Amino acid sequence: MEKDTSVADRLARMKVNYMKEGMRTSVDGILLVQEHNHPHILLLQIGNTFCKLPGGRLKPGENEIEGLRRKLCSKLAANSTSFQPNWQIGECVAIWWRPNFETVMYPYCPPHITKPKECKKLFLVHLSEREYFAVPKNLKLLAVPLFELYDNVQRYGPVISTIPQQLSRFQFNMVGMELLDNDPATYLKNKTWVKETNPCLERKIRQRVLTPLSGLSLSLSFAPREFVVPAPPTNGEQERRQPKSGVLAVGIGGVGLH
Amino acid sequence: MEKDTSVADRLARMKVNYMKEGMRTSVDGILLVQEHNHPHILLLQIGNTFCKLPGGRLKPGENEIEGLRRKLCSKLAANSTSFQPNWQIGECVAIWWRPNFETVMYPYCPPHITKPKECKKLFLVHLSEREYFAVPKNLKLLAVPLFELYDNVQRYGPVISTIPQQLSRFQFNMVGMELLDNDPATYLKNKTWVKETNPCLERKIRQRVLTPLSGLSLSLSFAPREFVVPAPPTNGEQERRQPKSGVLAVGIGGVGLH
Repeated sequence: MEKDTSVADRLARMKVNYMKEGMRTSVDGILLVQEHNHPHILLLQIGNTFCKLPGGRLKPGENEIEGLRRKLCSKLAANSTSFQPNWQIGECVAIWWRPNFETVMYPYCPPHITKPKECKKLFLVHLSEREYFAVPKNLKLLAVPLFELYDNVQRYGPVISTIPQQLSRFQFNMVGMELLDNDPATYLKNKTWVKETNPCLERKIRQRVLTPLSGLSLSLSFAPREFVVPAPPTNGEQERRQPKSGVLAVGIGGVGLH
Repeated sequence: MEKDTSVADRLARMKVNYMKEGMRTSVDGILLVQEHNHPHILLLQIGNTFCKLPGGRLKPGENEIEGLRRKLCSKLAANSTSFQPNWQIGECVAIWWRPNFETVMYPYCPPHITKPKECKKLFLVHLSEREYFAVPKNLKLLAVPLFELYDNVQRYGPVISTIPQQLSRFQFNMVGMELLDNDPATYLKNKTWVKETNPCLERKIRQRVLTPLSGLSLSLSFAPREFVVPAPPTNGEQERRQPKSGVLAVGIGGVGLH
């Protein structure tokens, strides 16, 4: 369940927490999946409009990487311990600052602001070739293409809509190919896609590698196209914060693909 | 002098070059300077409106780093060999794609585009503590603050206006302080500014260090606040492409600072 029912509630809670704990530090994960030869980002949709990245607020003094792992588990992991995703937190690609108890954030701490109210960091999260996700019942998990996010601040806000620009320096190299959907020759003609080195032909499980163009050596695995639905826990394990849905639809149609 | 007098001319020339040489590859430099405790980016202004980053098109087969160094010299270096800037080309922070012979570019190669017409890469350029710049007479060199660029696609276009987001993952650490302008205590209260380790108190020459937050160790020197005007060449050296102006105004006022 979301903690706040309105933006005003959220800002009021933020203010109370600031008085107790100082600047809020939050961490969000950018999880990439591949669909129709184009990278997509996983977003959690609340209701029919608002989308957010999986992540959340760190506890005071909590390590960023550990905190993001904890948040990803609470938002996306199945309850069963045998289906825990193998999150590999990668590099920080963006930092946003909230100067006041308002919704507006900036990709820098504005001059003359000595006490920002929040610092939000976005990290790449590398996924294994096959991951099991579970999603709280009140949320939908969407895979949204970069071309839908780009230049769409109206729908996704400034933080999410500029992720395409922040990922642009990476080169997306295909490892597996969507052989059943597309002619592989198409990819090879396109200079942005590098010839696959280790084709993985298993349907519905595709892996992609991101190689940055300067200095870093970074390998990103894309998630399966259709997330695997974990079996309901049979060992009497208790649901944690809330029940999670058993059907994990990846709602592509709703966000403008094709 | 600009090669084209209109956008249509520019696109026509691009098409002719594409037929001869294939996809255009261009490289631009992001040169950072510091003003009033806030990072600024150097832009070349043509006339009263259009701004661009220093850089340009690579020759077929030319190395990106060498090509950017060549372009920076032709746009910003004094004619005298004793005033050549010590360009240190840093990491690639963004890549933009032009799918068609049109002005629109994207931070990804759009799906189904197999023959993009241009690939433009933006590189950080590290400056030494003191650099000598010269600017062609038909251009003005501006230092534009991040807060002016941010969310200002109307004035600066999509490539330049999202540089603040692409730099957000770097932490700007002050090395020198503007002691005459500001109370240093102000910085120390602000968590985004790290206590200086090597204060450089010389007026008008300030050095800053950028430290990325994840993995990299990157040191960026900011340029002097007021660029040093090189003395006119006395050794009979010929002007190269065109005369360069002797007065290097850094036009802050025109771009919204204060």
